[in-house]
This record gives sequence, structure tokens and C-alpha cells, in this order.
Amino acid sequence: MPVDEERTVIPDVPRGPLCDYRSKAQFNWKDFRLVLEDKELVKIKYDIWRRLEREPLFAPVTSTLSVDQQKERAARQVNRIADLELAPPEIYSKPYKYRVRYLMSINEALHAVCPSLSVKIALGVGLFTNSLLAMGTDRHQEIYNQAWNREIITCLAITEVSHGSNTKRCRTTATYDPATQEFIIHTPDFEAAKCWVGNLGKTASMALLFAILYTADGENHGLQGFLVPIRDPKTLLPYPGVTVGDIGEKIGLNGIDNGFVMFNHYRIPRENLLNRTGDVTPEGVYESTFSEPGKILGAVLESFSAGRLGIMQESSNTLSHAAVIAVRYAALRKQFGTDRNGPEQSIIEYQLHQWRIFPYLAAACVLKVSVFAMTEIYLETVQKSQAESNGFELLTQIVSEIHALVSSSKPLVTWTARDAIQESREACGGHGYLRAANLGELRNNHDPSCTYEGDNNVLGQQASNWLIRQWKNAKVESPVGTASFITRRDAILSGDYDALLRTGVRLESTEFVSQCYEWLMCWLLKQSVAQMEEASKAGVDTFTARNNCQVYRARDLSRAYAEYYALESFRSRCARADVNADLKPVLFRVYLIYGLWCLDRHMTTFYAGSFAKGSAFADAVRGTLLRMCGELKDSAVAIADALAPPDWVLNSVIAKSDGRLYENIQSVFMTNPGALERASWWKDVIPSKLRAKL
Amino acid sequence: MPVDEERTVIPDVPRGPLCDYRSKAQFNWKDFRLVLEDKELVKIKYDIWRRLEREPLFAPVTSTLSVDQQKERAARQVNRIADLELAPPEIYSKPYKYRVRYLMSINEALHAVCPSLSVKIALGVGLFTNSLLAMGTDRHQEIYNQAWNREIITCLAITEVSHGSNTKRCRTTATYDPATQEFIIHTPDFEAAKCWVGNLGKTASMALLFAILYTADGENHGLQGFLVPIRDPKTLLPYPGVTVGDIGEKIGLNGIDNGFVMFNHYRIPRENLLNRTGDVTPEGVYESTFSEPGKILGAVLESFSAGRLGIMQESSNTLSHAAVIAVRYAALRKQFGTDRNGPEQSIIEYQLHQWRIFPYLAAACVLKVSVFAMTEIYLETVQKSQAESNGFELLTQIVSEIHALVSSSKPLVTWTARDAIQESREACGGHGYLRAANLGELRNNHDPSCTYEGDNNVLGQQASNWLIRQWKNAKVESPVGTASFITRRDAILSGDYDALLRTGVRLESTEFVSQCYEWLMCWLLKQSVAQMEEASKAGVDTFTARNNCQVYRARDLSRAYAEYYALESFRSRCARADVNADLKPVLFRVYLIYGLWCLDRHMTTFYAGSFAKGSAFADAVRGTLLRMCGELKDSAVAIADALAPPDWVLNSVIAKSDGRLYENIQSVFMTNPGALERASWWKDVIPSKLRAKL
Repeated sequence: MPVDEERTVIPDVPRGPLCDYRSKAQFNWKDFRLVLEDKELVKIKYDIWRRLEREPLFAPVTSTLSVDQQKERAARQVNRIADLELAPPEIYSKPYKYRVRYLMSINEALHAVCPSLSVKIALGVGLFTNSLLAMGTDRHQEIYNQAWNREIITCLAITEVSHGSNTKRCRTTATYDPATQEFIIHTPDFEAAKCWVGNLGKTASMALLFAILYTADGENHGLQGFLVPIRDPKTLLPYPGVTVGDIGEKIGLNGIDNGFVMFNHYRIPRENLLNRTGDVTPEGVYESTFSEPGKILGAVLESFSAGRLGIMQESSNTLSHAAVIAVRYAALRKQFGTDRNGPEQSIIEYQLHQWRIFPYLAAACVLKVSVFAMTEIYLETVQKSQAESNGFELLTQIVSEIHALVSSSKPLVTWTARDAIQESREACGGHGYLRAANLGELRNNHDPSCTYEGDNNVLGQQASNWLIRQWKNAKVESPVGTASFITRRDAILSGDYDALLRTGVRLESTEFVSQCYEWLMCWLLKQSVAQMEEASKAGVDTFTARNNCQVYRARDLSRAYAEYYALESFRSRCARADVNADLKPVLFRVYLIYGLWCLDRHMTTFYAGSFAKGSAFADAVRGTLLRMCGELKDSAVAIADALAPPDWVLNSVIAKSDGRLYENIQSVFMTNPGALERASWWKDVIPSKLRAKL
Repeated sequence: MPVDEERTVIPDVPRGPLCDYRSKAQFNWKDFRLVLEDKELVKIKYDIWRRLEREPLFAPVTSTLSVDQQKERAARQVNRIADLELAPPEIYSKPYKYRVRYLMSINEALHAVCPSLSVKIALGVGLFTNSLLAMGTDRHQEIYNQAWNREIITCLAITEVSHGSNTKRCRTTATYDPATQEFIIHTPDFEAAKCWVGNLGKTASMALLFAILYTADGENHGLQGFLVPIRDPKTLLPYPGVTVGDIGEKIGLNGIDNGFVMFNHYRIPRENLLNRTGDVTPEGVYESTFSEPGKILGAVLESFSAGRLGIMQESSNTLSHAAVIAVRYAALRKQFGTDRNGPEQSIIEYQLHQWRIFPYLAAACVLKVSVFAMTEIYLETVQKSQAESNGFELLTQIVSEIHALVSSSKPLVTWTARDAIQESREACGGHGYLRAANLGELRNNHDPSCTYEGDNNVLGQQASNWLIRQWKNAKVESPVGTASFITRRDAILSGDYDALLRTGVRLESTEFVSQCYEWLMCWLLKQSVAQMEEASKAGVDTFTARNNCQVYRARDLSRAYAEYYALESFRSRCARADVNADLKPVLFRVYLIYGLWCLDRHMTTFYAGSFAKGSAFADAVRGTLLRMCGELKDSAVAIADALAPPDWVLNSVIAKSDGRLYENIQSVFMTNPGALERASWWKDVIPSKLRAKL
């Protein structure tokens, strides 16, 4: 397709004060965007946004609704989305990867507009049906269809009041009663109440519930999934034996009705057990079924990773939005200048300000690309697992590697977005504290991403554990290639900064960053393993030894691994033939800024591990980072344009694409409900001491 | 006073599950508290809290009120506080220091309950009257009295829409008209509208406004203060010529009616100019008046520092609250354990978790003490400035030093509180995301502290600039002693980690931490100065040279200086005779945890500056930090008790002193308004596809 036609997928930005900086960019921002995101997917998102923009139910609200109104709004939006049929019917006959990628893009578009809505749909449709597919069989097809077709509202009930990360210790029971061929679901006490369950608070009629299966002989068969009717779908009244409620106001995402539920010897039919891997016979005997191990493996991958990938996709957009707001504001806001009485300069001109916000702009680009790449590998793997012909062993290895990748990357992406929002909030000063700047909403809605679908600190350990296994293995099992550097460990660890320079590697190169990372990971692996072995020799149990090896070691390792993967993905993307030559310099600066900024955070390890001595390495990394930030300045606004969604989606009065900062603020100030009116309660607040005088 | 009597100032905590850890502490937590806070001030705070607890208007709300309701509530609270006369009348005859300290403690107590209220009073009474005192003369006494007696609601209007940090470039004008002996206040355009002014949105009748004074001859006499009537105090309707409104919803602190105002050739009497340092004669001649330079200096110090100290006092409490919530929850929450099927252990037992939250617990202790110490110096200095006999030169030096101290410490304290809240939120997992956990409110209300009263990044430069001046001066002017280390610069810089150990200084000592800091500051000073001189030689202007020396240099210097002062204050406090011997070990651990944790963040500088080589220094600092965290574990709950306000003030369902975590959560879940009810809008959200089937 000719370049010009490609660009029409993305709407133009209006002319205005931002054009001063826009015109300094040496590349076309639309081309830049099409490096970060696949054209087809960009098109899907803009189509969704165009359709939603016409819907009154999706118009941004100008002041926070009550919690109940937020729930109502989100619930209505769920229905409206179902009616709009955003996904064209033909995609359902397309291959798995194409179909899911399409649906993921719809989710990204929805999330950018209404995070609560997107989570409600993701939980109630995506995760519910995925899990049902993974764990259920033909006899659950009916419920699957109802959920998929949005005829019932569903939820996934795992977490209990006193058990979150450690789901294996859940205490809700499902005891089989052969007399009636039913399971009796029971909650022993409030601590075992299912809670935080999205959609459960007010709306769900059906739950996919995890409970400990007991057969009548008292034997425990572990945590199993069950379909448990909660409410009559026609009246939304709970069934007898079910105590269900809403957990109340949260810091954000109040459109989601998170609920809790307790069961009092509540009976469900035998068939409601999700029996893909095991079943209870009518007589009450538990039988394991092992079949199609490849498919089960794929399903397990899906049930673990789909949610986390979704969070990463959403978070990389949140990160983009925060960076866009900070960059546009920095270009427009002027404060101080060289000459005390001369013109003031844009705050984007200050080195400190560049250093505060450009790494997040770069991170937004790099992580968008790497999350896309990770999703591709994931989708291809699940798709392959659905075919019969795959080698099971290889698939097992791939699944483990993807799991490690996802488990380290979800913390990286969500934490980076969290930090970007906060830095952006502060970098936009007082005006950034306006609700209309949207940074508060972004922060409050993004916040739980750092702890749900696996608390970041706990989740990251899955990756370090996997890496440590590879390190200890005779043979490194890394079919995706993310850990193949381990095979070169001896050579890597024998090098240092000086040696690296002697090989002729330039500081400003992807090789430099990449090799620093490989050394870093090898060193952290070696130290972690040595420390754990030492503890083991001293008689410390494995659990404790591993826990005491997290700080400064395994935790840093997990993060470094995710950063390394992100940088490598970005590098490969930029090396592809479809990338115009005029984009190369700016893409390279983005790579270096993110890479050096990340390396800088690991600086102590480079010194403690004697990779570097004296000031040369730190000066080189930091000096280059600052210089690159200076060089990015003239491109930053164009990059922000490339990352930005339409203004109404970004929804920030201080970062509209027209650049009319103060006119837009004026408009908000003047049109806030009651802005210029005397308060209705004015009489009650006349100071009593003045009133006494009157 | 006997120890037991002293302890009665602080109420007991109820028995419950937290006592398992409480009983492990080797000291009395009330004694610990009385090291952190002066007994008299603790008593004031508890008295205030006891009185407020009886007031329905101060009872915590269970779900977020609308923005308008929040404003109404805060405005009513302001009146109620005036009626309650919390400060006993006799304090007004006491010396300045005693009086202000008393009022500051009242403010701390109020802030912990209702941050919006405290800010409204601080702005409308404290800052307004302070500024009036500093800038006005006898002719403004009437307004001063009205404000002080809460007969009028006032505000301070400095910031304009397009000028925040750079207040000198404000564009509101006050032009003298000799014909009527009036000033004509005028706002040239919306960008010059005063905005973000607290109390202005709905309630203030009088503003202390900053505008550029022009005499009739067109001469600009710089930014001056004026008393400008905004609304009729009896009707709260704005006067003609004044366009005043509310800026709308913010991320937090919505009880404050932040407003904007524009003036259209609005006339005020000549006498409304605050004429302490200069006046306009009736005929229109501007005349400077120089008198009582010491008093003026004291007043300047007050007007710059009072607000910042207030913010630090409040933020150190916010930091305490966040740390208390995290520690209590960590003691009560159990997850995983050594044996897969054995008992689970409290998450406070995990090293990673300790490392995440204990440094904030330690920071809360250290910063509470250092903010108190800083306030003492400040109050003594202002008090001295009010006497006639002081040497002006010495006073000038003290004022500069306090200004540096405050300018570096406000960023440190507010950023530490910010980070503590976020870490605590994540460390409390899902339950930390409940509004009832109170971490969201803490975060949203604390947030602006990082940017107001001087954006942290800009404010911190005042301290580094002062330090650099001392470095370059022939004679170090540091009467308070915070920079006297500079006189020993050569000896300090000639040392390194190995040399330090050779002198016999133990790693686990205050000397060690202190000497590391002195090296750090000297090195950063030397590098900063060298870098700026180099830039200067290359023809770079001073403004740019200084800006390009912030990242990794002056910015780190400013932070290190504040940390150093905090640690030194804490050390001296702990060395005082009134500290019981059984408190010494735990206080020392607190010191070390905070000190080593801070040093760890500067680790790159220690390596880049060749203070350290190889892994020894990093291993020592980090290893000791982790070991100290492990040792603090059994004291952490008792320290949290010492930092905690009464439960109703902390207002966190997951951190009540009774330790009944899940019972308290259950109570909140069950009693949320409408928790168990069907939503009023249930019919509207039955899925359309199901409805079609019915």
C-alpha cells in the first residue's frame, strides 16, 4: 500500500501552538505510529473510537459520579457494547490468532475510554469463557454460549477474604452427595468468603467458582472449578443459600461491582463440575482424565496469561497517555528563561524536565512494541497447541518460557505506567492536579494492575525461578530464545566494561546495551544461585532460602530480564524492512533513552560485580542518556502525537492536540457546573462571629 | 514526672491479634512515642482528637461525598472549629515560639482528620495573617483582627493561570490613580487570572493579592501585596468588576474551594497596599521604607517557611499513617509458609516484605523527629528576629541556612510520604485498594504537597544553590551547623570506604553513616562546581549551566543534604538524657535502616566517585540493611503503635489497633449502604439478548 494511503488510517491533528515543536521533527509521526502498532489494529481501534464517540453513554463525564451511578453506567455500557456488536461476525470464522488479536484490540480501545467497562467485559466474557474452555467439557457448552452471547452476566470467583496470592489454600468446599448427585457448596466462615469478584456485587447471575472438591468418603481432591448459579438472571435476586453483596467503594474502577459471596450448604448439580481433567461419577468416585495433553497445556497457558497480557496492553496505553500529557504540557508551559526579563522558555527545554519525562515517553514506545511481540508469540503458541501434531515436550518448554516472560513483564509494564502517571502528575504542577487533566483518574484506575492477576512482587518470582532453573540445567530450554544468553555465560561473565569497549562496541549501540544486560543477568543469576546454595548448606529450607534471595538479587533479575526482552523486541521491530530510513535515528534515540535509563537503575550491580570501576561507566551511561534526551526534545511532541489517542479519549484539558492550553483550561473553569454561582449552602457558612455582629 | 504518669498522656491500645507481635517488643511503645514527639504536643493532639470525636461534623464518611458536599462540609467545619475555640485563650499571651508551636500542633491534629479543613484554615487564617504581618502595617490591623478572629474568610492570591513557580512574572496589575487615590486592579487576560487560590472558589470575601504596582507615570514597582475585597462578607456575592469562580474538581482535597478570579479595572483604596517596605504617597510617588531590617528578615522567613514547615509536619504524619497501615496489615495477613500444607506465616516474616515497608516505618520516625527539630530552630530564629538586639548579619546567615534546610527537606518529606503511601497500598494487596483502607484518600490528598508551596524539583535547587555558595565562599556561613562539614572538605574527600574502616569506625554506627554522607555531599559539591565552571568557560550562561547541573548532581546533593540533616537530628534526639536505655537498641536500628536505605540510593555516586570499589561497600550497606530489617521485625508493631493516631483518625479498616482484620472487613462489607440490596437500576441492565428471550 502506498505510504499516503497507510497514513489515512490515522486522523490528522489540528494546527495550533504545538506545531512549533511538531515542525521540528525530522519524520512523519504517523509513520512512527505504524512502527509501534500494526496498521490493521490501529484501524480497528479508530473504528471503535469513532463509533463510541457518537454514543452518549460513552461521553466523558465532567465530575465524578456517585459510586452507584458509576456502577449503573458501566453495567449499561456492557449491554450497549453487546448491542453494538463491535466485532464483525466474520472474525469468528477466522483462525484463533487473528480472532483473539482482533478482540484484544477492541478491548484496548474500550479500556482507553472506560477502564471499568473493559474490565467488566474482560472478566465476564473473556476470562470466564476462556476458563470454561480450559476446564469444562461439552456439557458446559450451553453456559459458554450464553456468556459469549452476553445473555448472562458472569464472574470468576477465586480469591477469598483471607487468601489472595496463595489460592491453593482456598477454603470454600464442594462436597459431593451421591444421594442427590449434587455438590454442596459451603463457606465455612467469613474469611473463606469469595471476595473482590468483579461483576458479582450487583449483576452476575453465574459464577465460575473454585472450591476444594471432597467426595463423600471425605477425600480432598484439590481445587476444582464449578459453575455456580448466583442470582436469577431475570430478576437479579440471589438464590436461597447464597449471601451475596457488593464490597463497596474502592480507590478507583468503581464502575465494577466487585462482590463477596458466602454459600450455606448450597446445592448444585453434579454436571456443574468442570470436568476436563477429572470428574466425579454419579456414584461419587473421583476419576482423573488425561487426554490431549497439548491442548490442556495450551489452555493452561491461556488461563494464566490471557489476563496478564490484557493488563499489559492496557497498561502500555495508560503509560502512553501519561507520557503524552506530560510532553504536550511541557511543550506548552513556559516558565523562567535565560534572561530574567526576556522571554520565558517551555519547560521541555530544561534538562531536568527532559530527564523526568522522556524516559517514560521512550518506555511507552518500547513497551508497546514488546507487549505486541509477546502477544504474538503467545497467540501463535496457543494456536499451535490446538493442532494435534506438536511435540509435547517442545510445547511444554515454550509454555514455561512464555509464562516466565509474562510473569516478569507484567510487573515491569504496570510499574512503569504507575511511575509515569505520578511523574507526569508532578511534572504538570498544579494544573496536573485538576480532575480535568485526567491523571488522577488514570492513577486510581491503573493502581490495582500492580497487584491483581498476580501481585507484582510475587509474580515476578515465577520468572526468576524459571531463569534459575535454566541456569542450573545442563541444557538451557529456551525455545523462544529469551534465555539463550545463558549458554554463553562463561564468556559473558569474563567480560567487563573495559573489555567491551576494547572489542570495538560503541556505547551508542544496541550491542552495548544488550551486552550490558547479558552480563547483568548472568551475574545476578550466579549470585542468586550461590547465595541459595550457601543457605542450603547452612541448613536453611528451600522456601526460606529462596525468599531471602529476592532483594537485590532475584527481584532485580526478573526486572532485568523483562527489560532485556523489551529492548530486544524493540530492536528487532526497528530493524524490519518496512521501517523508513528517516525514522531510524529517532527510533534509535528512543531505544537508547529507555535502555540507558534502565541500565542506570542497575548501576550498583555493575559496580558491585566489578563490571565497572571508577566513574567512566556511570558517566558514559548517564552522560549519553542526558545527551539523547536533549536530542529527543525536537521529536518529543511528534512522538506524543504518535502515541496519543483522539482527544476525547485522552480526555485531558492540559494536553489536547490543538495545543490551546489556556483556552481549554478557561473553558473548563467557566463551564464547570455551578462554577460562577454562589453555593446553595452559603448562608450556613457565614462565620458565626460575623453573623453575631449582623 | 514519673514514667507511668507520662505514659497516661497516650491512650492504651486494645488487646487482640496484634498482641502476638506487640509482646515481642523489648520496650514500651509509649516511651518510644515520647522520644518522637514532645509530651506536651502529644497531649494537645489527643485533647483535640477527643473533642473532635464527639462532633458529628467530624465523623469519617463511609463513601465519597459529591464535590459540592465536600466543600460544604469543610466550610461548616471551619466555622465549627472557630466556635470550638480549640486553642485556650491564655496561649496568646505566651511567647511567640510557645504560641505558634501550640497552633501548629492543633493544625497537625486537624490535618490528620480532615486535610481539606486544615488547609483551608492554614491558608485563610495562618498564611493570610502571617503575610499581612510581614507585609502590612498598622493600617491593616482591622483586617488582621477580622481574619484572626474568623469573622471573614480570606485567601492568598499569588499563582496565575500561566505563572506558578515563576511568580515574579505575574501579570495582574495595580495602577495608582492619584485623582481618586485608588489602585485599579486589572487582569489583562485569562492567562493572568489568579487561580488555584484556596478558599476563593466559593467563600472568601477578602484576598491578599499580589500584583505589579504601576504608578501613574507608568513606572513598574514590582510585585506588591494588596488587600482586595472579593465578595460581600454578608451575602457572599462578588463585587462588581470581579469575576470569581471555582476551578472545579481536583484529584483530592475537594473540601477546599480553589478558585480563580479576574478583575476588570477594579478599584481599591490606596491604603490597601501592604506598605511595610514601600508605599505610594497620596500624590502617587512610590517611596521605599527601610526600617527594622531584622524584623523584616524574620517576617520574610516566616512567609517563606511557615507553610513549608506545616506541610512537612502534616506529611510526616501522613507518612506515619501509611507505614502504620502497612505494618499492622503485614502482621495480620498470612500467606504461604515453609511447609506447603503447614501453617501460613504473616507476610511481615518475608524479607522482601520487610525491605519494602520497614524503611518507611523508620523514615516516619526519623523525619518526625527532624521536622520537629527544624521547626524549633525556625521558631527560635523568628522569635529572636522580633527582639531588637540581634546582629543583623548573623540573622541573615541563619535565615539563609534555614531556608536551604526547609527547601531541601520539604521535597524529602513529601516525596517519602508519597512513596510510603504507594508502597503501602501495594503491600496491602487488594484490601489496600478498598476505600475503607484509606490509602487512596491519603494519596489523593497528599499528592499536591509535592508541587505546591514550591514544586519539589524547583524548590530543592534553593538548597543546592546555597550549599554551592558555601562551597565557593572563602568562609562557610553555617551558623546552624548543617554545612560546617564543608570546612573539612579536603580531609573528607581524601577518604574512602577502606580508609574509613581503617580508622576503626564500625559499619553499624552513626559515625559511619554520617561520614559517608559528608563524603557524598562534598563529592557532589565538587563535581557540581567543576561542571558549572567548565560550562562557564565554554561560554554557557549561568542559568543554563546551573540547569544542566541538576540531574545526578545538584538534585542529588539537595536530597543528600536533607537526609543528612534528618539523620543527624534523630541521632542527637536519641542521645538525650531522657531516652531510656531499653529504647536505645531499637532507636539505633531505626536510625540504621533509614540511613543505610538512603545511602543505598546514592550507591552509584559512591562508586563513580571511587569512594568504594568492588562489592564490599554495597554488600556491607545492603547486607546490614536487610539484617537490621530482620531484627526490627519484632519491634515493628510496637513502633507502629507509637506512630499511630486513634483508630478513628487513622480510619483504616485493615489497620485498626484491635487487630481484628477480617471481622472489621466483614463489618464494612456488610454495612456499606445498599451492600446486600439489589441495585435500583437492575431492570435496565438485564442483558438485552436475555430480555429478548423473555
